[in-house]
Amino acid sequence: MTALQSETRDDAHHVVVVGGGFGGLQAIKSLKGSGTRITLIDRRNHHLFQPLLYQAATTILAPSEIAWPLRHVLRSRPDVTTLMAKVMDVDTETRQVWLGDGTFVTYDTLILATGARHSYFGNDHWEEHAPGLKTLEDATKIRRRILAAFEAAEKCDDEVERRALLTFAVIGAGPTGVELAGIIAELAKRVLPRDFRRIDTREARVMLIEAGPRVLAGFPEELSSYAAKTLERLGVELRLGAKVTECHSDAVDIGLDSVPCHTIIWAAGVQASRAGKWIRADADKAGRVLVAPDLSVPERPEIFVIGDTAAVDRADGRPVPGVAPAAKQMGAHVAKVIKARLAGGTLPAPFAYKDMGNMATLGRRAAIADFGGYKMKGVLAWWIWGVAHIYFLIGTRSRAVVAWSWMWSYVTGQNSARIITQPEDGKPQ
Amino acid sequence: MTALQSETRDDAHHVVVVGGGFGGLQAIKSLKGSGTRITLIDRRNHHLFQPLLYQAATTILAPSEIAWPLRHVLRSRPDVTTLMAKVMDVDTETRQVWLGDGTFVTYDTLILATGARHSYFGNDHWEEHAPGLKTLEDATKIRRRILAAFEAAEKCDDEVERRALLTFAVIGAGPTGVELAGIIAELAKRVLPRDFRRIDTREARVMLIEAGPRVLAGFPEELSSYAAKTLERLGVELRLGAKVTECHSDAVDIGLDSVPCHTIIWAAGVQASRAGKWIRADADKAGRVLVAPDLSVPERPEIFVIGDTAAVDRADGRPVPGVAPAAKQMGAHVAKVIKARLAGGTLPAPFAYKDMGNMATLGRRAAIADFGGYKMKGVLAWWIWGVAHIYFLIGTRSRAVVAWSWMWSYVTGQNSARIITQPEDGKPQ
Repeated sequence: MTALQSETRDDAHHVVVVGGGFGGLQAIKSLKGSGTRITLIDRRNHHLFQPLLYQAATTILAPSEIAWPLRHVLRSRPDVTTLMAKVMDVDTETRQVWLGDGTFVTYDTLILATGARHSYFGNDHWEEHAPGLKTLEDATKIRRRILAAFEAAEKCDDEVERRALLTFAVIGAGPTGVELAGIIAELAKRVLPRDFRRIDTREARVMLIEAGPRVLAGFPEELSSYAAKTLERLGVELRLGAKVTECHSDAVDIGLDSVPCHTIIWAAGVQASRAGKWIRADADKAGRVLVAPDLSVPERPEIFVIGDTAAVDRADGRPVPGVAPAAKQMGAHVAKVIKARLAGGTLPAPFAYKDMGNMATLGRRAAIADFGGYKMKGVLAWWIWGVAHIYFLIGTRSRAVVAWSWMWSYVTGQNSARIITQPEDGKPQ
Repeated sequence: MTALQSETRDDAHHVVVVGGGFGGLQAIKSLKGSGTRITLIDRRNHHLFQPLLYQAATTILAPSEIAWPLRHVLRSRPDVTTLMAKVMDVDTETRQVWLGDGTFVTYDTLILATGARHSYFGNDHWEEHAPGLKTLEDATKIRRRILAAFEAAEKCDDEVERRALLTFAVIGAGPTGVELAGIIAELAKRVLPRDFRRIDTREARVMLIEAGPRVLAGFPEELSSYAAKTLERLGVELRLGAKVTECHSDAVDIGLDSVPCHTIIWAAGVQASRAGKWIRADADKAGRVLVAPDLSVPERPEIFVIGDTAAVDRADGRPVPGVAPAAKQMGAHVAKVIKARLAGGTLPAPFAYKDMGNMATLGRRAAIADFGGYKMKGVLAWWIWGVAHIYFLIGTRSRAVVAWSWMWSYVTGQNSARIITQPEDGKPQ
């Protein structure tokens, strides 16, 4: 129960940032030169490039290609100390962030940027059978389940069981669900066939289940219907207007039907992290903290909440989406507010989200993009998507390795990250 | 309890290979065109390039850079079926290999190539505190422990505890122990210092503990003493003639001393796999099956044992070492014997190991090499080691990626695979 050593070393204004995702890192970058002392706390040692996580889950990229040690990213910032620790609670009176090992860190300003997890809408027991995709561990688990299903099918001599092993269900047809389904279909239809002897992997059934009437509801209808057609051409079976009623280890129930199926992936909903509870703040149904126009917490101006943990609306009343550019913009905004407060200058105008457009990939050769008025689809959109994502990766090395992995996959049709590790029972099968 | 479907499909001579390491894969390669039908059984889905495993454990390479799905390696061999399954037992009377799911595979010829695990010389309870390095999971675990120790030290405000967190013990100064200690020292002294704020990682203590009188006892004394000097220059503390008497979670006992230490790695001894027990064969103390001069099991000519699971002597009476070239030579040899038997031709001469020389790296810029009469050391030996290992990797993609990772590490001094995943308690810290 002691304060960490450096607590008393320095009397600069102390900004504590919890969460090293897009929002937290951007806040730290934008605070450069502000004269503050910064402590970044994350329970993981790495920043994760979530927009490409679905590729790690589907054997195209390796985990280390889309994650970087936070302290390495911040190595040239002597004003930033990085702590790998789990936050247990926040004492807003004494301004202390309490860590899992019983120590605490005292802040002058606190930025909560702890993101979101998947939500099962009250059916938390589905998680075991239908994992979601938010962390590298999730990606490794999903990759393991997909690959292990093909392995088990190759060994299986029961026709019905084999068909269940070769059935894959993705629940939720937002960008993540669409991207996962597209790659799994390609894996089955194009990447794996030559590797197996007893099964024809092309017979695999990949279902994309969506309660709403269309895929990618966030996109204009025209792109949505192009996406649906492209997915069907890749071999994805679309189940629109279909409501999942239960997830089992060997089946998914859709309405009153039960479809035998060994691999289910959840891409249907998210819920904000627990940060709102630490500070006992008002939150919406999804747990997102209701923030003031400057992204601070009402009556706690020294606490900011940003990214997927904050409930922020656009000028037209629609919510700001839970995407990387939004989190980054919020991070930059709170840095501006903090700097203005310390300098005693004019405070910036309220936060306003600037929509940079929306993209989603369909397999490895097509994508759709919606830049406000300007829409794109097909191969060219895929290339633009690829170049944009390589641009946003961190560091020359990752850019080169990811570009190389994609070129390799594109040209040879082979995915390289197809290793099964860490079986779930802890023992090799 | 049913025979797998394809059992009855084909009446070609059926060779079952258990284990897709260097020996098993080489046997399959050399059996190409023999007219046999081959089934490869491995409990993992990948071939692992073990000579570079220490680099995956020490953040230089990512797991997928040194492992390849077995069925992908064998995709152009329609005569080979790959099964990911755990072997439970072998019925040598009915010639059945029994798998973990209750099915069996019947063989005409059986090749057991199941390798070795580490041995704690009767102190199996040490494994929890001092993991060995044989699998990708081992490598991930060791990498996690090393990185987590630095993370914990950065958070720790107790001087004594921090020193224990920054003490690393490698037990056993054979090639693996020497290679691990060298890279850990470099990690602490050169790669990590700029990333931490509260600790000076250069103060880390890396001990290499060896019961014998010198490091790398398999090499000539001259190279051995060069290696010792190079390790000391890298900052490794050599403890020769030192016997480990106990491993704890927070200390290692050497003789009557107890050294506070949170990270212990075991590189001191190996033991053959259980394959000898499946076939109830005579084995030596380390569990290695005593084979006939053609590598078959006495009185069971249809069963061969190769690689680290076989006890084979050289012409001069010294044992054949447990290295990749030896396993490969044995694999090629049994393929020759099987082909000669099937063709009814002259059987090949007894197996004779051809020593291709011996290499070990010392950190990232030096190595030693012993090619019989010709000895090398230093930077040039490192480059020869590097080129040789890239040559033996599988496929253009891996060669390019590993070469790139090494160049990157060499030029920038940074290691790229520094992500902590899957904490041991299953939950992120």
